[in-house]
Amino acid sequence: MPATAAAQDAALLRRETDIIWLAVASALVFFMQAGFALLESGMSRTKNSVNVLMKNYIDLCIGTLVFWMFGYGVMFGDNPSGWYGTSDFFLSGASELDYSLLMFQTMFAATAVTIASGAMAERTRFSAYLLLSILVTGIIYPVYGSWVWGGGWLAERGFIDFAGSTVVHSIGGWCALAGVIVLGPRLGRFGSGGKPAYIAGHHLPQVALGGFVLWLGWFGFNGGSTTAASLSIGPINLNTHLAAAAGVVGIIILSMILRIPLLLTNTVNGALGGLVAITAGCATMEPGYAIITGLVAGAFVIGGTALLALLRLDDVVGAIPVHGFCGAWGTLAAGLFYDGDLFNGERIVTQLLGIGAGLLWALPLAFILFRVLDGLVGLRVPERFEMQGLDYAEHYEIAYPEFGNVQLHRGKEF
Amino acid sequence: MPATAAAQDAALLRRETDIIWLAVASALVFFMQAGFALLESGMSRTKNSVNVLMKNYIDLCIGTLVFWMFGYGVMFGDNPSGWYGTSDFFLSGASELDYSLLMFQTMFAATAVTIASGAMAERTRFSAYLLLSILVTGIIYPVYGSWVWGGGWLAERGFIDFAGSTVVHSIGGWCALAGVIVLGPRLGRFGSGGKPAYIAGHHLPQVALGGFVLWLGWFGFNGGSTTAASLSIGPINLNTHLAAAAGVVGIIILSMILRIPLLLTNTVNGALGGLVAITAGCATMEPGYAIITGLVAGAFVIGGTALLALLRLDDVVGAIPVHGFCGAWGTLAAGLFYDGDLFNGERIVTQLLGIGAGLLWALPLAFILFRVLDGLVGLRVPERFEMQGLDYAEHYEIAYPEFGNVQLHRGKEF
Amino acid sequence: MPATAAAQDAALLRRETDIIWLAVASALVFFMQAGFALLESGMSRTKNSVNVLMKNYIDLCIGTLVFWMFGYGVMFGDNPSGWYGTSDFFLSGASELDYSLLMFQTMFAATAVTIASGAMAERTRFSAYLLLSILVTGIIYPVYGSWVWGGGWLAERGFIDFAGSTVVHSIGGWCALAGVIVLGPRLGRFGSGGKPAYIAGHHLPQVALGGFVLWLGWFGFNGGSTTAASLSIGPINLNTHLAAAAGVVGIIILSMILRIPLLLTNTVNGALGGLVAITAGCATMEPGYAIITGLVAGAFVIGGTALLALLRLDDVVGAIPVHGFCGAWGTLAAGLFYDGDLFNGERIVTQLLGIGAGLLWALPLAFILFRVLDGLVGLRVPERFEMQGLDYAEHYEIAYPEFGNVQLHRGKEF
Repeated sequence: MPATAAAQDAALLRRETDIIWLAVASALVFFMQAGFALLESGMSRTKNSVNVLMKNYIDLCIGTLVFWMFGYGVMFGDNPSGWYGTSDFFLSGASELDYSLLMFQTMFAATAVTIASGAMAERTRFSAYLLLSILVTGIIYPVYGSWVWGGGWLAERGFIDFAGSTVVHSIGGWCALAGVIVLGPRLGRFGSGGKPAYIAGHHLPQVALGGFVLWLGWFGFNGGSTTAASLSIGPINLNTHLAAAAGVVGIIILSMILRIPLLLTNTVNGALGGLVAITAGCATMEPGYAIITGLVAGAFVIGGTALLALLRLDDVVGAIPVHGFCGAWGTLAAGLFYDGDLFNGERIVTQLLGIGAGLLWALPLAFILFRVLDGLVGLRVPERFEMQGLDYAEHYEIAYPEFGNVQLHRGKEF
Repeated sequence: MPATAAAQDAALLRRETDIIWLAVASALVFFMQAGFALLESGMSRTKNSVNVLMKNYIDLCIGTLVFWMFGYGVMFGDNPSGWYGTSDFFLSGASELDYSLLMFQTMFAATAVTIASGAMAERTRFSAYLLLSILVTGIIYPVYGSWVWGGGWLAERGFIDFAGSTVVHSIGGWCALAGVIVLGPRLGRFGSGGKPAYIAGHHLPQVALGGFVLWLGWFGFNGGSTTAASLSIGPINLNTHLAAAAGVVGIIILSMILRIPLLLTNTVNGALGGLVAITAGCATMEPGYAIITGLVAGAFVIGGTALLALLRLDDVVGAIPVHGFCGAWGTLAAGLFYDGDLFNGERIVTQLLGIGAGLLWALPLAFILFRVLDGLVGLRVPERFEMQGLDYAEHYEIAYPEFGNVQLHRGKEF
Repeated sequence: MPATAAAQDAALLRRETDIIWLAVASALVFFMQAGFALLESGMSRTKNSVNVLMKNYIDLCIGTLVFWMFGYGVMFGDNPSGWYGTSDFFLSGASELDYSLLMFQTMFAATAVTIASGAMAERTRFSAYLLLSILVTGIIYPVYGSWVWGGGWLAERGFIDFAGSTVVHSIGGWCALAGVIVLGPRLGRFGSGGKPAYIAGHHLPQVALGGFVLWLGWFGFNGGSTTAASLSIGPINLNTHLAAAAGVVGIIILSMILRIPLLLTNTVNGALGGLVAITAGCATMEPGYAIITGLVAGAFVIGGTALLALLRLDDVVGAIPVHGFCGAWGTLAAGLFYDGDLFNGERIVTQLLGIGAGLLWALPLAFILFRVLDGLVGLRVPERFEMQGLDYAEHYEIAYPEFGNVQLHRGKEF
């Protein structure tokens, strides 16, 4: 083989390897949808578990088509203003690599949109939620994304968010926060005098499995964010794993200090908090700092959950602490622990700017959209439906018809 | 390194990359077995859920050995007649790539055989089902497969079935159809006057998880059907994902038009129908057509399910609409929407020929085999066993001994 | 591109491909944690299912940090004596490939430690188990590992254990054996006169899913043990799959011969026994011998389970037969069926030496550690806790609060 043919073949193999890695990573990130579905359904009551699963399926499917039609172009199209993209809608006739990138980014958009469903579980009207998921995948997520990953104004300032602690997770978390503010808490969540009453999820093994599936998917989420074959996949995924483990160890230590029980739900959320937090800086940190990032994330999970209860905000699965707060912390940590240049003040300021921009973009906008949806179709189901359970009231089916689902027999059970 | 050594090394790396991709894809397709087990078990009643799981395990294991012994040779061995292969039985001493291909194809054979188990659930004798799975993996599936993928007569005519809408899914679906015809419906499935009575599956979260696992596995099923590192993996898997999402959106639209509830089981089957349909043409279609293929598949799922009920055929999980009908539709769609040459009449005729050949090969042959098995060992369990549940009657164990499985206490529950 | 630049680029792509394969394999082996959690939780009673899940989560997280701090250095650090490593603790500033290897090996350590949790389920004190997992990940596992994979004395003698039938599985199994000896059987496991009483697991679909997840993970466990892009990944994973299938077929045949019911738990354990057994020799055996290795492993599962019952040892999930006995058998089989040099006496002696060294290292040491832990904190929970269930007594939560978990209402249920 002459040298030029050999070089062409080598270049082709490199592109093919890039596409294989993107395909593997896309599959892993896709599987996170199953993780969210299991986790959120398990943390809900039996009578709402089908509703949660349906939201996860339908927001994925609608979001996938909306992102192909609009979102991808808004996020990655030509971006002359630095504020949003203006091309690549209904992507067609593109290169194999562009199709691979669209696939990978579709999975990210689907992750961002599904974060809110868990926080808002057990009381949100199905149709309103689906309208929301169109707006998140078509506007809220990709506009902010264009600022960071689409060559926009935050990218130009050197803001670091390698795989989306802010772009995906905090944005999703702030949408969730807006949602629970507009929705209000579930019936019975805050008893007389506003004292929080614990409402147990109906299926803890499902929660545990969901946590493992999400953790697995994160190796595609972070590792795949190289979007190409790269040596750095190794340290990125090691950091990812260490931070997740450290998130749980943070929960253990804090539970011992505070003398509170080490709950399975907190344990799973500790791992997820560590994963969310390391997402921004996984490519630019040494392992020891990844562990610190994870440990601190565990504290944000416990503290954030307590803070929400104090504010009478009802987040069914802890999505706001895990994705919102840990996402913000992790984005800051990416600046603090930047390899070879720790605690650089300028970088820290840039990181805070990006975090703040995400909060100021997503929270008010989502709040307004939720209010408008509330006025148009009603964001919350009627009280009677909430007591019956959304599965029966909105979907005409129940999750386990043979396991004595008590809520169908008791009129006032909630 | 001299140029020739470099070229050899590059060629080696290419072969290694091929094998890595095949290994990843094989693992993903293997995992579809878990998806089928979850989906089919969840759509069955508690009293038959172990039976369904056992069928999935045992047909995989027996099928794996039978395919190594006979099936692979029948499908991919030297094929002088164009109708079946005649070498490569008990594959041994082969190259690493051949072993990789055997592995990948074993997972396909296991998929084909397990499709029937869901349709025939809750009333089929375990031993009869196992004999069937030997015949499917050893004869029905690989003989047809040799026509298309083993260089046989359909391959020569340019029949397009990239990853097996017909080869795997329709063939499996027609076996399922033959099975439910011979078996007859479950007790109580069609009430007095033949009116269909809905028999709810016992565990919808399992169904939802099974759907996600199958969807995940399809990225190996379709993407892996390149059987080598290839740029086309990118668009193939994008099309796969878009068609699945569109299948669900098709179900949503049709449910709204027909004013029927959007059931979780239909939603999951809509995704699967889209996946089955895009399997034939995923490598030769632009994304917009993949979406159309999926949307129409959603209609085939709803329509096919209604048709079977009308014909008093009892398919517990909807395997016949999803795999049989959507497989046929998708094979046609691969001809209709061929990139750069839409609606070519000659290609459409070839596709119809292949679809028809699959139907005429698998349905009568499976019907005869089922009849013979019925005469020899009895295809259907005694009525008493069906009422008790197959778990207790055939397996001496029950799925959830602590959850108050009511069927053990009520003699006539079914 | 000049020839040297091309060669450098080719070498880079090779290293990147190595790292991609390690990342994929690490993710698959990680997912085995979910498989263990599902399997062990499903085979336990409802009242202890959260406890099992928590052990799986916490031993993974603590084990991950301990292995980074100590275990990796003990196992893979400079090993002048041939008995343990002495460098690479708190790995930092390392190459991308070293980080990838640490990641992959961390997943192996996590597998080794979690094996014991299933055998010791339903009666072990949570805090004692966690101390144990530190000792296994920090000492027992990596010291033996350094002998085989860290260039130690067994490596020098040509001992074959490609992916860890002994290094991971038997070592884990012998720890489990020591644990059940020290713990004693669960209340009610051996009735009056010592007759074994069957205690059914609470969730067989979870067991089945766990089995599929473990099987999936094994394609990373064995295939990934090349630790680099390699043609041999193809035959390795084919052998892995064939042995798993053969393990189940072995169970079927033996169940027919012995006229015992073909239980789902035995079926799943048959597959796992086949997988454990082929782990040592998967890279150095032809497919036919992989099948034999698996078939015999099925017999070890059935026979080993019966042996333990005879000895009044209570292994809740069958971890000792599956990992201990099948691991030893498979390590022997790797010597017996070595490709191109079958039944070489010298090799068989070396294999027996390695198997014996593992047993003599892990069993007494684990036994002593368990005894010490028993003296310090109490290895077993009080009888009252065991009757209540560990979920309520140790974790303050229950797995399925809405499914009528009978154990909370009956004081003496066990």
